[in-house]
Amino acid sequence: MSDSSSTCVRVDLGPRSYDILVGSDLLSQVGRVIADLGRTTHAWVVTDEHVAPLYLSQVCDSLNERGIRTDTWVVPAGEPSKSLQTAAAGWQKLLEAGADRGTVVAALGGGVVGDLGGFLAATYARGLRFFQIPTSLLAQVDSSVGGKVGINLPQAKNMVGAFHQPLGVLADVGTLRTLPQREYVSGLGEVVKYGMILDARFFSQLEADVEALLRRDAEVLRRVVARCCRLKADVVEKDEREESGLRAVLNYGHTFAHAFETLTGYGVWLHGEAVAAGMHCAAVLAARLGLLSPEVVERQADLLRRLGLPTRPPELSPQEVVACVMHDKKVRHGRLRLVLPTEIGHVELIDSVSPEQVIAALPAAAASEFAS
Amino acid sequence: MSDSSSTCVRVDLGPRSYDILVGSDLLSQVGRVIADLGRTTHAWVVTDEHVAPLYLSQVCDSLNERGIRTDTWVVPAGEPSKSLQTAAAGWQKLLEAGADRGTVVAALGGGVVGDLGGFLAATYARGLRFFQIPTSLLAQVDSSVGGKVGINLPQAKNMVGAFHQPLGVLADVGTLRTLPQREYVSGLGEVVKYGMILDARFFSQLEADVEALLRRDAEVLRRVVARCCRLKADVVEKDEREESGLRAVLNYGHTFAHAFETLTGYGVWLHGEAVAAGMHCAAVLAARLGLLSPEVVERQADLLRRLGLPTRPPELSPQEVVACVMHDKKVRHGRLRLVLPTEIGHVELIDSVSPEQVIAALPAAAASEFAS
Repeated sequence: MSDSSSTCVRVDLGPRSYDILVGSDLLSQVGRVIADLGRTTHAWVVTDEHVAPLYLSQVCDSLNERGIRTDTWVVPAGEPSKSLQTAAAGWQKLLEAGADRGTVVAALGGGVVGDLGGFLAATYARGLRFFQIPTSLLAQVDSSVGGKVGINLPQAKNMVGAFHQPLGVLADVGTLRTLPQREYVSGLGEVVKYGMILDARFFSQLEADVEALLRRDAEVLRRVVARCCRLKADVVEKDEREESGLRAVLNYGHTFAHAFETLTGYGVWLHGEAVAAGMHCAAVLAARLGLLSPEVVERQADLLRRLGLPTRPPELSPQEVVACVMHDKKVRHGRLRLVLPTEIGHVELIDSVSPEQVIAALPAAAASEFAS
Repeated sequence: MSDSSSTCVRVDLGPRSYDILVGSDLLSQVGRVIADLGRTTHAWVVTDEHVAPLYLSQVCDSLNERGIRTDTWVVPAGEPSKSLQTAAAGWQKLLEAGADRGTVVAALGGGVVGDLGGFLAATYARGLRFFQIPTSLLAQVDSSVGGKVGINLPQAKNMVGAFHQPLGVLADVGTLRTLPQREYVSGLGEVVKYGMILDARFFSQLEADVEALLRRDAEVLRRVVARCCRLKADVVEKDEREESGLRAVLNYGHTFAHAFETLTGYGVWLHGEAVAAGMHCAAVLAARLGLLSPEVVERQADLLRRLGLPTRPPELSPQEVVACVMHDKKVRHGRLRLVLPTEIGHVELIDSVSPEQVIAALPAAAASEFAS
């Protein structure tokens, strides 16, 4: 499943293995790819109001050409669509569409559409087959890989859900051309994360590719998205259901990011922006604990800044941030568990950090020598 | 996990294997059994308004004695509790109870409580561990075994759900003493089904045990419930997610039963009563097709009648019943797929039955020589 314009990343999960196809001009091949998987007579395509006018007809045409009947469902763009009310409407739509074992649920869009569509697929008729067509950078490098699907409760994000691996993922980097600049750049925050946690060579390559990334060069994006998918797949293959703790490395920067998002109010910071500032705080903390050299802190900050990402945390009291972190995470004997870098390409789970050490690190991360 | 008063049935599903413990006076051992499974600090017990006053405090005491913190949730008894609204309330309760990976969701009750509790466990925080404590005969021999969990959509029963195997099942046949007579007898319909589809020797034993069953003899019930669980487990082990079609044998009598339940209005006939009449119709049809001897039809009808179960289908036009069956089932080229018996202990999936043959069989099943 690889040709001149696409790269195939295999996710090896035994009977739940699947391929991620990354490339340009792939949307017109959705029908062929899904038909090749067999057994499909019907595709139920869920997307959002932003993506529908851009790509929905192309995807449906491609499916219809292969004799696959299509039904579509367009939800409002944004996080509120990951609600129980939206899920209830989705189940009803699936019933009206006569979805059955010949149906594939296809999610065309960003993380919200993927998480919602995947949850509907996981739960309708005790499980329909699921296919991901991520159109945002964040979804292509992160949320479409690994099988986590779900919706939010009013007080808790992603609290209702399942592990439901897709049949396949088709990441067309051409769709990234239509992303708003801020959303595109936000996705680059997660890209930098993969270099920091797992792959020093990839990190160096990103440093060399900053200009190409900023002009959304298709060839560079294909390579970058495929590498991120491979790195995430390596982790997911070893810890599919987040049982061994290994998957925790993917949370680098995220403990702080969740606090920033919560305290500033969801939507003020985009997720990848909060992750960028969160990684910077984690790196500064690691340096202050003697785990990481200050040069690496600066190198990470420099790459994030060149990509247009923030490194300075939002203006919040450090005490407030730490209180939020401690509410969010399991705290053992008053010590925090945090994923901290020790060099480029390697992180460790450190469970001996005191709240005071975090409170002291946050103003340092905001200080001018480290942040912009 | 077997002592003088209990029988252990092992369900072998690889990493999802578990034990069904069947016996008397087992409720006081819930705490020990769950504690022995490890990792449990908290049990979230869901039950209904009928069962709570009878058994909830005993179960919680047993858990607390082993140092397991308990939270409880009591839902109204009956099918309406398998709704999306109830599930939404349940997720909220789990959040308030601080449920996490140390939590076991325990369902104490009949099929409704088991299906609802299992669905909440399957979906909260991408999956909590689940334990079944069935207290109705139907739940002990059928719904608590096999991992099917779910809720109803307004127009479609069990349409939202998952396969989520329990950690373990504890079937205390002592709880059957408090079942209303009609509900208890209804459960015997499913018991007879297991003999007909899989085990001629068990069928003969049931014929010998009618009086003991009607006085709810604990020793006989232990043997009967354990045998039904073993027979269902054998099927589930070979077709865990209903993919090979093998699990279809469990639907003997159910195609007609669903039509009877739907057309008379849910709740008019109890499920096991509808299954009994449905099995009689299927057997009469099989005899008319030359697949089954009339003596076997009479032997099945006789056993059902002696147990207090109906064999005569409800007074509906045969045309209406067939239309309902054809709406419900996949119909191939105008032919129905039905599970029909060929001898006691054996059924086959027959996909060449015409609607006219069914229409002719229904009045014959209602006729006096075959039905009561």
